[in-house]
Amino acid sequence: MTNYATYFQENREQQLAELKEWLSIPSISALSEHKPDMQRAAEWLADQLTAAGLENVKINPTNGHPIVTADHLHAPGKPTVLVYGHYDVQPVDPLHLWQSPPFEPEVRGDKLFARGATDDKGQVFLHVKAVEAILKQEGKLPVNIKFCIEGEEEISSAHLPAFLEENREQLAADAVLVSDTSLLERGKPAISTGLRGLCSLEVAIHTANTDLHSGSFGGGVPNALHAMVELLATLHDRDGKVLVEGFYDDVLPLSDEMRAEFQKQGFNEQKLQQDLELTALHGEEGYSFVERIGARPTLELNGVYGGFQGEGSKTVIPKEAHAKITCRLVADQNPQDVLDKIITHLEAVKPNGAKLTITPGEKARAFNIDPSENELLQKAADAYTSVYGTRALFTKDGGSIPIVEEFSRVIAPTVVLMGFGLPDENLHAPNEHFNLENFDKGLLTIVEFLNSID
Amino acid sequence: MTNYATYFQENREQQLAELKEWLSIPSISALSEHKPDMQRAAEWLADQLTAAGLENVKINPTNGHPIVTADHLHAPGKPTVLVYGHYDVQPVDPLHLWQSPPFEPEVRGDKLFARGATDDKGQVFLHVKAVEAILKQEGKLPVNIKFCIEGEEEISSAHLPAFLEENREQLAADAVLVSDTSLLERGKPAISTGLRGLCSLEVAIHTANTDLHSGSFGGGVPNALHAMVELLATLHDRDGKVLVEGFYDDVLPLSDEMRAEFQKQGFNEQKLQQDLELTALHGEEGYSFVERIGARPTLELNGVYGGFQGEGSKTVIPKEAHAKITCRLVADQNPQDVLDKIITHLEAVKPNGAKLTITPGEKARAFNIDPSENELLQKAADAYTSVYGTRALFTKDGGSIPIVEEFSRVIAPTVVLMGFGLPDENLHAPNEHFNLENFDKGLLTIVEFLNSID
Repeated sequence: MTNYATYFQENREQQLAELKEWLSIPSISALSEHKPDMQRAAEWLADQLTAAGLENVKINPTNGHPIVTADHLHAPGKPTVLVYGHYDVQPVDPLHLWQSPPFEPEVRGDKLFARGATDDKGQVFLHVKAVEAILKQEGKLPVNIKFCIEGEEEISSAHLPAFLEENREQLAADAVLVSDTSLLERGKPAISTGLRGLCSLEVAIHTANTDLHSGSFGGGVPNALHAMVELLATLHDRDGKVLVEGFYDDVLPLSDEMRAEFQKQGFNEQKLQQDLELTALHGEEGYSFVERIGARPTLELNGVYGGFQGEGSKTVIPKEAHAKITCRLVADQNPQDVLDKIITHLEAVKPNGAKLTITPGEKARAFNIDPSENELLQKAADAYTSVYGTRALFTKDGGSIPIVEEFSRVIAPTVVLMGFGLPDENLHAPNEHFNLENFDKGLLTIVEFLNSID
Repeated sequence: MTNYATYFQENREQQLAELKEWLSIPSISALSEHKPDMQRAAEWLADQLTAAGLENVKINPTNGHPIVTADHLHAPGKPTVLVYGHYDVQPVDPLHLWQSPPFEPEVRGDKLFARGATDDKGQVFLHVKAVEAILKQEGKLPVNIKFCIEGEEEISSAHLPAFLEENREQLAADAVLVSDTSLLERGKPAISTGLRGLCSLEVAIHTANTDLHSGSFGGGVPNALHAMVELLATLHDRDGKVLVEGFYDDVLPLSDEMRAEFQKQGFNEQKLQQDLELTALHGEEGYSFVERIGARPTLELNGVYGGFQGEGSKTVIPKEAHAKITCRLVADQNPQDVLDKIITHLEAVKPNGAKLTITPGEKARAFNIDPSENELLQKAADAYTSVYGTRALFTKDGGSIPIVEEFSRVIAPTVVLMGFGLPDENLHAPNEHFNLENFDKGLLTIVEFLNSID
């Protein structure tokens, strides 16, 4: 049997140098001035895929940033695995907080620092190099492989759903393989079998046509902030339970089995509280932290603002106030249905004198898969065992990767979320990095997984 | 009898030119770069007072901006009237909204446009010129007159209270005369017999030591905005009544007499609602708009903010949230006592997981005077009759001029608030102006008032 550990060891410097090259391209999808960089990053990936031995490598233009596809379909009778990932990255500000420039990749200690190091170029790169390794070592692949790497994940995957629909046949697969998530912690691998969905809305309240002086008008006219506070206060009870009628209708009660699975994570709530310097954890009665995050929906105020924000005081009665709200959804909650219920609620409790404007935003369903009888998921969990010395746990993530639910619906119900990041690698923040321990182990785990499929 | 109307008509051009000179000096007390302008504005006033015939003209330095004093004490046995006003002005931004530059005074139609035109240089100037007129016409004054004109009214009169205390004897008077308020509307003069007091505080809530991702933490940790909304929602009922225990303890119930006085204003609530495009007036049950403003205290949210305020949505759990609060106080409410009660309330209802920081700010008592048996106030109201064709109404103002309560306590209980501004003259806003009709009538009314005192 081929010793992949030795192979990857020998090629490590070269591969890291290549990854750094890719990470040097500032492929920030959100900023239009980086459009040429997006193209360069896509071309770099296409060249890599070609060099790795993939076929039909193609840079597919969209109305946004291109999608890179490739395949290697020479394992007749074997399953087809589609690898999904993204080559776009988050913006980098505040730049002054970066210890080394975000697009000048640097290894410090056992970590590779750069924007995109873990989210998601570093993790996509693992799949390219794992496939290359097998092809170089064995001359063939144990399965059929397809790649579909987009450039708009950080801007809501605007053009990918249509691309999936239009290319259903070309992209058809038995499973989708994604590395864009994390281990639970160092040495504690996890495969996420659930991602929360999402819906968002903005609420504006207008009262008067101008800000008013609180001396001349205070006590006699509506204050947009009072109205906003009154409105928002109706959304939760003191524990954070959402009071919108019907909000929990399509949420599944936690089964004993799921509770047991959550229990296995051995999550340390006290440490979390200390790390974040919280005076208390906070959430719905009767659930642990991991249960609240993994299996319960939320309605969060992400931003509330109105009136004077400067230094000192200003005796103003603000004419308008704003709130930004997102919900994390679970199980069968339908984002549109949830939005409708929230809107109905807000309109029903509208305060006196308030003109209400509600603007719905994003919508994404939750993703869920039952690992108990899914052979590929079980094999994926097994693949970690020999590399990490411990089998991957099946977890539920609190975050949302809307495109995963899309893939599970359009391409294949089985989406395998083998994440090799760590939760504290500063995704979306300054000093993003990738622990090279998981770079090394990730390569081996992917090879192990692919080779285990028959 | 001297015809003052003719006198002022003949001197009108000259006097307006002089006022424009004063208005050209950008005496913005809040901005340190204008410190030399503050001195120039004080000197200009001192020169005018001297030219008018006042004596003991003095520019009194303080740790802030100087206070200009002067007197004319040659009416033995007659009352002494101290004129108070201010020569400092508000900042002028946003500058681009000014039709003519704020410090290049310009008469357009029958209005004089400039920062300070009505608040308060224009109104102080009336007193200087009224006294000058009497001295020129009669060779003496019917009363003893003192002037005390400060340069820090727009920055909370920081040094005036100490100055009053230290110079009690020099400033001793039977009444204080102030023109820094408004007519009710054009042709409808008013003398304010009440000003609301004020207290302010800032409330901050901190939860975690960092903003958190709502995917990884939403539903399991405190959200500073949820806590802030929960906290602030306890402060009012749906009508705006303040729910802080003991808040109304020192508020006097409205007497039938006061209700009748408010009624006299004939305030048009429907017009107010239309002008401000309100869907409803809003306030405590059982009170009219003028009663709410004139005789009821408030607790207003002037600013609330936390979390994301940019375009679109951001799935953040904010680590902190802020609120700015001011109260307007009436009757015997003690600002410190009210602050204490609010703080006790907030601490009692502090939400789970919230670290509360409360920073008290300004404090000022309400001013109130009963005009029914006050001879000087009755004479002041009468003085308007021949000039405006209608007697001044006694009103209660919703705004606060903290120094007025100070004067009433330290110098003389009788403070006569003869305002010659109009409510829509853009005080503190771009395009501040002074209606020249009230410039002309103000001069005559002051002369009439002073000559009526015996």
